[in-house]
Amino acid sequence: MSVTAASGFTAAGVTAGLKTFGGLDLALVVNEGPLRSAAAVFTSNRAKANPIIWSQQVIADGTVSAIVLNSGGANCFTGAEGFQTTHATAEAVGEDLGVSAGDILVCSTGLIGEQLDRAKLLAGAHLAAVERTANGGADAARAIMTTDSKPKTAVVRRGGWTIGGMAKGAGMLAPGLATMLVVITTDAVLLPAQLDAALRQATRVSFDRLDSDGCMSTNDQVTLLASGASGEEPEPTEFTAALVELCQDLARQLQADAEGASHDIAIEVVGAADEDDAVEVGRAVSRSNLFKAAVFGNDPNWGRVLAAIGTTAAAFDPYEVDVSMNGVRVCAAGGPDRPRTEVDLRPREVHVLIDLHAGSAHATILTNDLTHDYVHENSAYAS
Amino acid sequence: MSVTAASGFTAAGVTAGLKTFGGLDLALVVNEGPLRSAAAVFTSNRAKANPIIWSQQVIADGTVSAIVLNSGGANCFTGAEGFQTTHATAEAVGEDLGVSAGDILVCSTGLIGEQLDRAKLLAGAHLAAVERTANGGADAARAIMTTDSKPKTAVVRRGGWTIGGMAKGAGMLAPGLATMLVVITTDAVLLPAQLDAALRQATRVSFDRLDSDGCMSTNDQVTLLASGASGEEPEPTEFTAALVELCQDLARQLQADAEGASHDIAIEVVGAADEDDAVEVGRAVSRSNLFKAAVFGNDPNWGRVLAAIGTTAAAFDPYEVDVSMNGVRVCAAGGPDRPRTEVDLRPREVHVLIDLHAGSAHATILTNDLTHDYVHENSAYAS
Repeated sequence: MSVTAASGFTAAGVTAGLKTFGGLDLALVVNEGPLRSAAAVFTSNRAKANPIIWSQQVIADGTVSAIVLNSGGANCFTGAEGFQTTHATAEAVGEDLGVSAGDILVCSTGLIGEQLDRAKLLAGAHLAAVERTANGGADAARAIMTTDSKPKTAVVRRGGWTIGGMAKGAGMLAPGLATMLVVITTDAVLLPAQLDAALRQATRVSFDRLDSDGCMSTNDQVTLLASGASGEEPEPTEFTAALVELCQDLARQLQADAEGASHDIAIEVVGAADEDDAVEVGRAVSRSNLFKAAVFGNDPNWGRVLAAIGTTAAAFDPYEVDVSMNGVRVCAAGGPDRPRTEVDLRPREVHVLIDLHAGSAHATILTNDLTHDYVHENSAYAS
Repeated sequence: MSVTAASGFTAAGVTAGLKTFGGLDLALVVNEGPLRSAAAVFTSNRAKANPIIWSQQVIADGTVSAIVLNSGGANCFTGAEGFQTTHATAEAVGEDLGVSAGDILVCSTGLIGEQLDRAKLLAGAHLAAVERTANGGADAARAIMTTDSKPKTAVVRRGGWTIGGMAKGAGMLAPGLATMLVVITTDAVLLPAQLDAALRQATRVSFDRLDSDGCMSTNDQVTLLASGASGEEPEPTEFTAALVELCQDLARQLQADAEGASHDIAIEVVGAADEDDAVEVGRAVSRSNLFKAAVFGNDPNWGRVLAAIGTTAAAFDPYEVDVSMNGVRVCAAGGPDRPRTEVDLRPREVHVLIDLHAGSAHATILTNDLTHDYVHENSAYAS
């Protein structure tokens, strides 16, 4: 049900003809009201795609009527012509819906540095506005896929109100290139400021802790729209908890479909002096190509874990750190503990537990291994 | 000629039996004087191997009589037993040379988290002390190899004095894991403080700008020893210039032998506001797996270059940046310029020129592509 699980939303996924190999490539999600509350978070990459530059202006007043998303091209580093394409897309949808283009968010994903076919894009946008229905969420989720092998959707229901969402992104997440796009809808009654606070809290512990390959996209955007159609006004803490659940579900789906990956790795850091330290340590390990290649080879090479920890500024003493892999403590107090041979890394799920013995804070970073297929897919992406 | 090109040095490379598959695995370089000046730089990884902890104490007084290096094990995360092994190695060599163990540097390279065979190591050290000659530099350079496909040596001669050096390390350099070890000798007359200043300046623009895979080793050490045997006292600037030349030569040899690499990439950043910005930008690009995989596939994907630049804090405007690859400007002012098809990335040497248009500083970072062979070699390293 994706983005149409919550009441007050319509959606469509259509074929605009932007993808080389055909298929659905344009999605539209319309907030039919009565509220038009919205919040969004964007890539922190300073090289921002045109749709990001546009959408950051649109979200400023917290009011959004619709979001249109295309695959088949990132519209990034495409200059003034590319920005005009984004603007024209918002104008086209605004015209069809009878609202200002300034209330239409735009997202794009695909290759950087190539112009989109504006005529095809606008024709697709008009078609989507006509074809949108209260059951269009599934098609919309398919239309935003690029190298994803399957659509990612999630729904969380509470007493009287619902949150639904769709996501795309296949590896290359920090949140990462090629690109992470997420649209979440709810029929709860919430003001833009409430949505913004909840969304920032939820992304901080979900998408921001997914680091498949350390590469940060120019196009990442996570959008939350509220229609208020349920008439229910949840407590902010209750809503945030539900939103965290949904975002973590989608983040795990993104991890599981990462390009070329053969292992889904959860790096759980405990005993940290504070949460920032735990995140820094987890992220350093998740960005070690040596560690990731070792996991691909089913090699419990804990030395590479400690070497990565050693590059951080986190509080720890190397000779107090414990490391377990899939339940076997291979390193205790910075030295060898159980034999490596006791560790079985053949399952797709890998759990690395790092105890820094420096405090009581903790965090978990999700990542993937570094595989032949990752190299292959990313050396051939443009073709 | 390696470390015995300069007069006043003897060296040996012997088989101690530490390597699983046999071969030379222990090197000794002895400064026969008259001077015993020395300087060294060490990994900035906070998880330091036992030989690093030892050597940092030895170098404190600027006096070193010899350096002993073993492959076949990193002696890192091996606890008190491992430290005692390092200490015993220095004692053994000191005894043979009739000097204090406190004047003997130790380096180790190989797998982390496994104890070295102390008896074999000490027997090898004694053997090397006996077998050392003024022509032993070539054997010493072979004995420090791990996955290196060839020894790396360089010699620079000036009026009356000489600098010679050997290096090991095959990829995994930031300067990087598995490990970068460099020993440089000179017969010039120089004080420890002069050596230290020259060495820091030279490593800053050579080994510190080699970033093959972003992984930082627990064992990296670059050592410079001066015997004074030539009787010549070079000007500090002249000596530093010669040392820079030698270090850059060795750095390029390390890059060219990086594990599994099929391209040697020079990322030249010009038009930077200052040199730190130029280094930060070059390093960010050199650590983008997406960019490195694209080069492996001979794909001039300049969007991934700009996306990596966008993650830095350097001064630049994305819409003023130019990017050229192997002489073809594919991106001008943040937009498409010449067609990608004009770029030929088939040669092993790849030159990426980035003009930030933000000032007049510049720097070049050396890196490699991300290949199937890199993944293979690093997923099977422990075996």
